Amino acid sequence: MGEIKAVVMEKTDGQIGLALKTFPEPELEPGGVLLRTLYSEVCGTDVHLLKGQLAGVPYPIIPGHVNVGIIEKMNGIVKDINCIPFQIGDEVVFLDVHETCHACWYCLVAKASTRCPSRKVYGITYSAGEGLLGGWSQKIYLKPGVKIVKLPDGLTPKDFIAGGCGAPTGLHAVERATIKLNDTVVVQGSGPVGVFAAVFSMLSGAGKVIVADPAKKRLQTAKTFDVDHTVDAASSEDRIAEVLKHTQQRGADVTIEASGNPKAVPEGLQMTRDNGTYVIVGQYTDAGDVPINPHWQINKKHIDIRGTWGTDFSHFYKTVQLMAKHNKRFNWQRLISNVYGLEDVAAAVDDVENFNVFKAVIAPGEDR
Amino acid sequence: MGEIKAVVMEKTDGQIGLALKTFPEPELEPGGVLLRTLYSEVCGTDVHLLKGQLAGVPYPIIPGHVNVGIIEKMNGIVKDINCIPFQIGDEVVFLDVHETCHACWYCLVAKASTRCPSRKVYGITYSAGEGLLGGWSQKIYLKPGVKIVKLPDGLTPKDFIAGGCGAPTGLHAVERATIKLNDTVVVQGSGPVGVFAAVFSMLSGAGKVIVADPAKKRLQTAKTFDVDHTVDAASSEDRIAEVLKHTQQRGADVTIEASGNPKAVPEGLQMTRDNGTYVIVGQYTDAGDVPINPHWQINKKHIDIRGTWGTDFSHFYKTVQLMAKHNKRFNWQRLISNVYGLEDVAAAVDDVENFNVFKAVIAPGEDR
Amino acid sequence: MGEIKAVVMEKTDGQIGLALKTFPEPELEPGGVLLRTLYSEVCGTDVHLLKGQLAGVPYPIIPGHVNVGIIEKMNGIVKDINCIPFQIGDEVVFLDVHETCHACWYCLVAKASTRCPSRKVYGITYSAGEGLLGGWSQKIYLKPGVKIVKLPDGLTPKDFIAGGCGAPTGLHAVERATIKLNDTVVVQGSGPVGVFAAVFSMLSGAGKVIVADPAKKRLQTAKTFDVDHTVDAASSEDRIAEVLKHTQQRGADVTIEASGNPKAVPEGLQMTRDNGTYVIVGQYTDAGDVPINPHWQINKKHIDIRGTWGTDFSHFYKTVQLMAKHNKRFNWQRLISNVYGLEDVAAAVDDVENFNVFKAVIAPGEDR
Amino acid sequence: MGEIKAVVMEKTDGQIGLALKTFPEPELEPGGVLLRTLYSEVCGTDVHLLKGQLAGVPYPIIPGHVNVGIIEKMNGIVKDINCIPFQIGDEVVFLDVHETCHACWYCLVAKASTRCPSRKVYGITYSAGEGLLGGWSQKIYLKPGVKIVKLPDGLTPKDFIAGGCGAPTGLHAVERATIKLNDTVVVQGSGPVGVFAAVFSMLSGAGKVIVADPAKKRLQTAKTFDVDHTVDAASSEDRIAEVLKHTQQRGADVTIEASGNPKAVPEGLQMTRDNGTYVIVGQYTDAGDVPINPHWQINKKHIDIRGTWGTDFSHFYKTVQLMAKHNKRFNWQRLISNVYGLEDVAAAVDDVENFNVFKAVIAPGEDR
Repeated sequence: MGEIKAVVMEKTDGQIGLALKTFPEPELEPGGVLLRTLYSEVCGTDVHLLKGQLAGVPYPIIPGHVNVGIIEKMNGIVKDINCIPFQIGDEVVFLDVHETCHACWYCLVAKASTRCPSRKVYGITYSAGEGLLGGWSQKIYLKPGVKIVKLPDGLTPKDFIAGGCGAPTGLHAVERATIKLNDTVVVQGSGPVGVFAAVFSMLSGAGKVIVADPAKKRLQTAKTFDVDHTVDAASSEDRIAEVLKHTQQRGADVTIEASGNPKAVPEGLQMTRDNGTYVIVGQYTDAGDVPINPHWQINKKHIDIRGTWGTDFSHFYKTVQLMAKHNKRFNWQRLISNVYGLEDVAAAVDDVENFNVFKAVIAPGEDR
Repeated sequence: MGEIKAVVMEKTDGQIGLALKTFPEPELEPGGVLLRTLYSEVCGTDVHLLKGQLAGVPYPIIPGHVNVGIIEKMNGIVKDINCIPFQIGDEVVFLDVHETCHACWYCLVAKASTRCPSRKVYGITYSAGEGLLGGWSQKIYLKPGVKIVKLPDGLTPKDFIAGGCGAPTGLHAVERATIKLNDTVVVQGSGPVGVFAAVFSMLSGAGKVIVADPAKKRLQTAKTFDVDHTVDAASSEDRIAEVLKHTQQRGADVTIEASGNPKAVPEGLQMTRDNGTYVIVGQYTDAGDVPINPHWQINKKHIDIRGTWGTDFSHFYKTVQLMAKHNKRFNWQRLISNVYGLEDVAAAVDDVENFNVFKAVIAPGEDR
Repeated sequence: MGEIKAVVMEKTDGQIGLALKTFPEPELEPGGVLLRTLYSEVCGTDVHLLKGQLAGVPYPIIPGHVNVGIIEKMNGIVKDINCIPFQIGDEVVFLDVHETCHACWYCLVAKASTRCPSRKVYGITYSAGEGLLGGWSQKIYLKPGVKIVKLPDGLTPKDFIAGGCGAPTGLHAVERATIKLNDTVVVQGSGPVGVFAAVFSMLSGAGKVIVADPAKKRLQTAKTFDVDHTVDAASSEDRIAEVLKHTQQRGADVTIEASGNPKAVPEGLQMTRDNGTYVIVGQYTDAGDVPINPHWQINKKHIDIRGTWGTDFSHFYKTVQLMAKHNKRFNWQRLISNVYGLEDVAAAVDDVENFNVFKAVIAPGEDR
Repeated sequence: MGEIKAVVMEKTDGQIGLALKTFPEPELEPGGVLLRTLYSEVCGTDVHLLKGQLAGVPYPIIPGHVNVGIIEKMNGIVKDINCIPFQIGDEVVFLDVHETCHACWYCLVAKASTRCPSRKVYGITYSAGEGLLGGWSQKIYLKPGVKIVKLPDGLTPKDFIAGGCGAPTGLHAVERATIKLNDTVVVQGSGPVGVFAAVFSMLSGAGKVIVADPAKKRLQTAKTFDVDHTVDAASSEDRIAEVLKHTQQRGADVTIEASGNPKAVPEGLQMTRDNGTYVIVGQYTDAGDVPINPHWQINKKHIDIRGTWGTDFSHFYKTVQLMAKHNKRFNWQRLISNVYGLEDVAAAVDDVENFNVFKAVIAPGEDR
């Protein structure tokens, strides 16, 4: 029972930095599970974490919220949602959100579990002092009750991690969009969330999927997924005009914002038809205010705008199943630009921040 | 067959003014109906019309879009939606919107008839040259196909006109709000739309209805409808704080904006709970942009925002039925502050503009 | 610390009977609560329990699933859904359903918690050997995690128990019915579930509420709640004809079955308009098949039929709040026909079975 | 301007038969359009028409309700829903339903246009005395206001007619089913409606589509569309068991009945999971009653059952667009088993009745 290496994001003299540390192997509570990490993701949230842009983070933390691993140990019998016991050696993934209380007003009356104040997130709101609760580590401790899913046939660990957190987030956005058969869908932004929002829109029966992003380089990935049109004009006016050209001058039935830029919001409203639906899923951190015209852009448009926060187990589970089903068609793992060892995590974060990569992945077990 | 007096809003040398004119009695097309006007409404839209703040108005027009009258003549048999023929002498009301085409993409595919580009509105988008197509007139010509409703038992012409356009607009907003039993509802603004939004929220099973308006005088009317709380703090922060106090610090399940002030929008978002619903119905003219924070106010709140434009026949019809059903409880006609003759229309518009009255009504047939 | 009296329903030689027994006061687990019972309900389910008509009941049991009591003891701090700690002496009620797992496919993916296979119900699926887990007892043990609600101002214990399980069941049915403003609603059956379905339909903005029941005596109670019409014709044809007469020969927008008689189902379908909604909530035990015509009664009608099983915490919580809000208007406790002591439980069940009472209530603490 | 040949279905001495007749070329009202028929469909409804099993049919009629043709003449400018004028020579299709009134309670208040009592259907409820209002004719007269769609690029007349009425009916059923991403869908019946219900379910993001039909021969067609499983067991019990095997013993999230057999209804309810959705679209004629158990099959299952009648323009329009989009993948025209001339119509009906063909098509212009 040796030592476990993990990357810690810690605050020293007000500066947040990364450090490789070692931890003892944890003791498992009844129902606890120990994973040997195969892959962990580096996503935009990790960039924000390193810059200290998220509130309430209990530094030091072990980052890495979406992960895939192999079950190495269990304390007792642990079962999946269909009551099937897991086995040592199973390749599994798990929902990063834990401790949703099922006892508060949000959980019980509003039935809005992603707004439960008790929820904690692996890799983000657990402190390193609480254990191996993040994926940039050779091993991950799954506390009792963490919701685990065995990878279905047809989905390798590498395929799964290629989706990362963008895949269930995109699925949740598409669920909020309530796309109907033959709808025209515009997606703003072509990073991981945008690409998965586009793909799940296609799978939902959209008649036309258009991806708009002024960053031509990023749009290349979206193009390889056979979306119907891409829009890369440099100015907002030109992007709106191009969407209108593709939609009989009416705008899209559904627009999904997955850009992170507040200015995308008034632009996206203009891209959407009267009585259409506008889903906002990309504004995950505070990037400031933006001017909106309530008369022209909301009231007279008779539009629906739907914010989309977090994911619950249903989004995660469905994402895993659908990624398996459509792996042959889409070949997910080609989305991974680069695989990094634990020693190279700083470079991985840097590459994500500078858009050098579409998807960066940590493989804690790989020798380098 | 004498002459008919009507008030015309006309543009002379770029100035919009009011003038009392006479018109000959119209010939009726087959299916046409002539009403003797009992009451017509003066609403905020008429103020905007007089100031030239609406686009596409074919001055000169005869204003007055919500009206009640007595059937004086019909060319042939004209029937209601239940196939029951109208009779001479019936007290009737009608939907101001006409010529919805049932042949365009919005009507047929999107099923969003309030966005049909062909629709015309009595008192607003018909020119006086096209006939007696507004209610500030002794008679009103109902073109073939105009949707007419006989006043049900228990609702007098005066009770109906007390609702004016605020009543079906409020009902439409509440329909968009999909209020559930025991929901807490905040209404921003206590003019006619706000009061009816509050009343229809109460009738929809809300657990608590709160009306917020810094204009204490206007709030008096809302109070007489037995809403649960009124909020009249002068500052936005204080109004938000008061709503939070009434809602376990969570905000309302549903907030309905009925104020017309763009600043109400970010305020209303703050008044609404995470995963709640925010309906915007009061922004009927362009009063400028307002800064919104997409992260805090939409995305992270996981909120639904719903613009609400116009009314269709279903809203109008249901409003008439429900006003009849609840007339004893609410005594609608007390909402009428003042009744004006055709000669006094300018004063009526002035009183509406300056909030001297809650509801101003024209009675074209009254001697003065 | 004396002995606690409770009525047990037990199986002896294949016969189910009632017996008054004594139990020791239980030890409280951390988070456990001991209630002194004020009132418990006797409902139709208890009649079925005594006849052995429910599957999977672990006799002996202490019946009584809807209850109200006073907190006598707690082990540790126990909080409500708003995080407010309960106090000794609080008058409280609780959701009879417990142990919903939040870990199975039904809870997590389908989000259909009333179909969770782990759920247990106080007074029905807990055995007397497991503790004081039913209300026909001087004290009730609330296991850790049982969802407790303090009675709000304006709702006395007697008012609450007058609603019994019919009140949240009726609310759930109305929620499933998605009633819109001005809808006409027919309720079939005028027992407790039917009366509360009618009342919550009225509170939801129905334009007209009609209660149909051939048992004229039972209809009397519904009448006192100011429903718009009652229909008491002896034959199915006549009841249908009467409903059609009240609905322009179209049938109701929404019909709610709350009768328990399978024959009510084809009758209710005939009472509902094309493209209307039919909610089935009264078929709580297997009373046999009934012939349905899929062409005329479902396909061509373009109808929605919605089964409604169980209640979750949201239905229970909203019921308590709305009963408090409308207590002055409806004066719930008048629904109680008779209050029985623990010694008279057999008479209470008998009275319920023979429809001698509208609502029978046990008061375990009352001297008799 | 020669004579026009058409097949008439007429009643002589109480017997319904087919006869080839000639008609003069009609004069066109303003807005009228004359089509040269390319293809017309023979469907199960035509079999029912020939047997006199539909009520209210004004024999003699020219059958053929789904059709495709070339515009030969127009009286004035006729435009599509996007306001684009049609041209002589355009290949077009049209919605068979006409004269929906937009003035009755069903159209205006219930917004259930498929239940409008005024609607008429080409090939079914128009008499031959009213004109060339059916497709088993060399020419078809499109009355003013008939909703016409130009075939989009990528969809030939033969591809379109391969869908026939089954395609929009299947789409409507899927719309009623509100399928969510990863849902498991069972379709009962593998005729044209069943196959298109299965295909549109796949396009809507279903995780798994299962088609059940004891007629193994018919199932072959479904198999070529890459559904996930087919179930061809001879007994109802075995079919249910097989569906349960594919669905973790829970049943499908959504089941769509497209079989026409009343016995399919209780079977389909058993195939559907608790809180799932059951759509009934195949019961287009009265084939008798069937016993249902309201407790086990509806109430306790907490199920939604949704009847689906007719199609409106939106279903027709979306079907045409999606058939064009996915023509390469599915190659629709392979569904056509046989093309018949006007002289062979009796054989075509016979082949449909005896299930000798999957899809029978009339080509009135083909020399034989």
